[in-house]
Amino acid sequence: MPQTIRIAIAGLGTVGGAVLRQLHAKAETIALRCGHALEVVAVSARDRTRDRGVSLDDIAWHADALELADITDTAIIVELIGGHEGTARALVEKALQAGKHVVTANKALCAHHGVQLAATAEANHAQLRFEAAIAGGVPVVKTVREALAGNRIREIRGILNGTCNHILTTMTQSRRSYAEALAEAQRLGYAEADPSLDLSGVDAAHKLALLSSLAFGHRPCLDAVRVAGIQAITQEDIGFAREFGYEIRLLAVAKQMRGGEGASGERIEQWARPALVPRDSLLTHVQGARNGISLRGDFGGNLFLAGDGAGGEATASAVVADIMDIACGRRIHPFGAPLAALPQCPSLPETDSHGRFYLRLHAADRPGSMAAVTRELAQAEISIERIMQTATPTQEPASHDSACHEGGAGGAEGNFPPSTKTAHLPVALLTHETRESAMRQAVDALTAKRDIVAAPLLLRVETR
Amino acid sequence: MPQTIRIAIAGLGTVGGAVLRQLHAKAETIALRCGHALEVVAVSARDRTRDRGVSLDDIAWHADALELADITDTAIIVELIGGHEGTARALVEKALQAGKHVVTANKALCAHHGVQLAATAEANHAQLRFEAAIAGGVPVVKTVREALAGNRIREIRGILNGTCNHILTTMTQSRRSYAEALAEAQRLGYAEADPSLDLSGVDAAHKLALLSSLAFGHRPCLDAVRVAGIQAITQEDIGFAREFGYEIRLLAVAKQMRGGEGASGERIEQWARPALVPRDSLLTHVQGARNGISLRGDFGGNLFLAGDGAGGEATASAVVADIMDIACGRRIHPFGAPLAALPQCPSLPETDSHGRFYLRLHAADRPGSMAAVTRELAQAEISIERIMQTATPTQEPASHDSACHEGGAGGAEGNFPPSTKTAHLPVALLTHETRESAMRQAVDALTAKRDIVAAPLLLRVETR
Repeated sequence: MPQTIRIAIAGLGTVGGAVLRQLHAKAETIALRCGHALEVVAVSARDRTRDRGVSLDDIAWHADALELADITDTAIIVELIGGHEGTARALVEKALQAGKHVVTANKALCAHHGVQLAATAEANHAQLRFEAAIAGGVPVVKTVREALAGNRIREIRGILNGTCNHILTTMTQSRRSYAEALAEAQRLGYAEADPSLDLSGVDAAHKLALLSSLAFGHRPCLDAVRVAGIQAITQEDIGFAREFGYEIRLLAVAKQMRGGEGASGERIEQWARPALVPRDSLLTHVQGARNGISLRGDFGGNLFLAGDGAGGEATASAVVADIMDIACGRRIHPFGAPLAALPQCPSLPETDSHGRFYLRLHAADRPGSMAAVTRELAQAEISIERIMQTATPTQEPASHDSACHEGGAGGAEGNFPPSTKTAHLPVALLTHETRESAMRQAVDALTAKRDIVAAPLLLRVETR
Repeated sequence: MPQTIRIAIAGLGTVGGAVLRQLHAKAETIALRCGHALEVVAVSARDRTRDRGVSLDDIAWHADALELADITDTAIIVELIGGHEGTARALVEKALQAGKHVVTANKALCAHHGVQLAATAEANHAQLRFEAAIAGGVPVVKTVREALAGNRIREIRGILNGTCNHILTTMTQSRRSYAEALAEAQRLGYAEADPSLDLSGVDAAHKLALLSSLAFGHRPCLDAVRVAGIQAITQEDIGFAREFGYEIRLLAVAKQMRGGEGASGERIEQWARPALVPRDSLLTHVQGARNGISLRGDFGGNLFLAGDGAGGEATASAVVADIMDIACGRRIHPFGAPLAALPQCPSLPETDSHGRFYLRLHAADRPGSMAAVTRELAQAEISIERIMQTATPTQEPASHDSACHEGGAGGAEGNFPPSTKTAHLPVALLTHETRESAMRQAVDALTAKRDIVAAPLLLRVETR
């Protein structure tokens, strides 16, 4: 008679409810595939009355989630509370200390405290699994940790935040403003009431820090991920990008680069920022709230994964896959190898970062202002690949959330043509490959000029 | 001191050589991630002198591959000989009987004899793994078997044969003829000297039979896969498809359908055939020799994977991932569950198959011939969605490898306009959803008519 594996779940929101339903609906298949029946014996959540589509009558209810780690006969604790401190962190620590396996969808927790939690897991022969933390139903953690385990990965580029992707694809397709697209994402349930973690790029950075660790074999290092949000992207930028043959997306990129002091050894560059992606790239076909990841390994070659990056059921599917892997007796190291073998992340110094750039600025409409821009870039030895002076219909003023250098240009959103406020020319350009530090210096110098009437926008341009 | 796991490899062609190189180059990483060093202790291949980039000096050479199963201290046998009978089959059987784990890239072997081999594996507590058999470096086996293990999969649609995909995308992009595109694929090494297994759809059928088994939880059943090759596709069809908003690809599709006797229960439809795929589908972005698979699970939602489907290194990467899974102590059932729990495939009877269709035919250029076509379809209650009388430049005669019903229309390929041979009108139409059996009957009836001057071409039209 095969043993029943007992599970406790903390957090019964959208994902937790779906995990309960899936474990219930697929009980027979799961038992068959794993050789063990799974039973949810205890749960903890805020609201006991909410209908989760499965009866909770035979499941012990704990108002205090921490109590779940005390139940002696549970083997797996599923943490779906969220947040990188507080109850979630305390529960995961306590469960691992008790030698219980933990399955979580909590990217913030793993990105902030993953090293410490993995150490606790190792010391107690427990597993810490977080497939659902990255790209929801897309099994990118398993792919990197297991399917590409014999590869040296060179590059990861992903659309890892569904909220930002929904907003940016809405802006691209229906030419709505950032504010309208955000409001729509919130109405459709793709953005939280407080979407700041998403919009700022921080959520994507959490996920990238974990993926980069698995891919490149170092400890996760959130501080090494450079982050920028999508709040400064205007319809004007979307239009310029389109004219150049690109779309703007929040990309999470980790690349292995040569560089660093003495230019020896390989360094990892990590960033989660809006960037221009070629229109014929597979990544631009990742629309709406979906997620997509492109990976390049030295043996496996190019691999592309896309799917439902959020939503209760897709995320639950990833949680259940982790539970089943544990139930099937399959073991992993949280970050792909024992912690002792994982070095700190050999981060590429910011000064060594280079790439192609998109620069959009508003120059005063007077003789010599364009010349001032191109002269500034020339002095910094930045070579311009393409330059364009008007995008397709500009219906917004410069940048809707950055301070402006001249009184009239910024402020409230509206549908008035820019010319009624200040006489300025929207200009966008693409550069050839250059150092990011040189580019930023040039932008700072430009920003200080009286010819530049609003804060310029600087984005990376990706070739794939 | 962790134990060394000893491996023997049979077959050192493109894939086998790359496996040797990868195991050698990544020895340290692999040992770190698995906790065991891996050592190739014996090999067997035809040509001992060929340079594989790794010294074979310390590796025992066996002219007879079957001897590899006799070496007592090997735990894993890697079979890269190919073919579903002969040495490959004998070696895998013997190795499993000896309780050794087997890793193979041999789709023909697994599709033909998978059930029997899995039974031998089970009886001897050995694993049989075949990630590399399907879609090369794309980890679709792991994804279906593990990441979606808690899902009921509804649908798989894949581009699983790089040779056919290379030919069809070349025909689409550079408007070359089938013969020219085939010659190019052979020149570039994407097609075998004898490419008949690929071109006929049989190779894709092997892969689909395995995937379908994993996805739907039944025993693989190659006979249930309906197969058609790409040899009858002409530049004219590519042009018509383009006008309709589609591309033609060899698709491997397995779907869960309602149907069968008494219309109760769920049935699986499986086919590997050329089909029309919408131009905005992710699958049409799988170009050249790449492979791509779209999956739909009831919880996981839509998932799309694409990557290098062939080539020594990508396939080797999948072989090495299977080896590492074994070395890490992770166990699987070859077909996702114990054989005893897997029923025969509940195949959808051919008479219950339905879908949308593309029909291309050449009608004699005389009054009433078009009316005869539409009347025949109307009588069969087949509803036409769109019809078109001339495709973009037709430079080939009707169908280059099917017998023709009137003497003048077929025969050698060439660049002459069809009108110089017979006066006929190329006609293509798309139907609404209809039964495939009704469609085939109507086509048979049309083919018998004197107004139809060459064998018509009938393809499925997919909506995604």
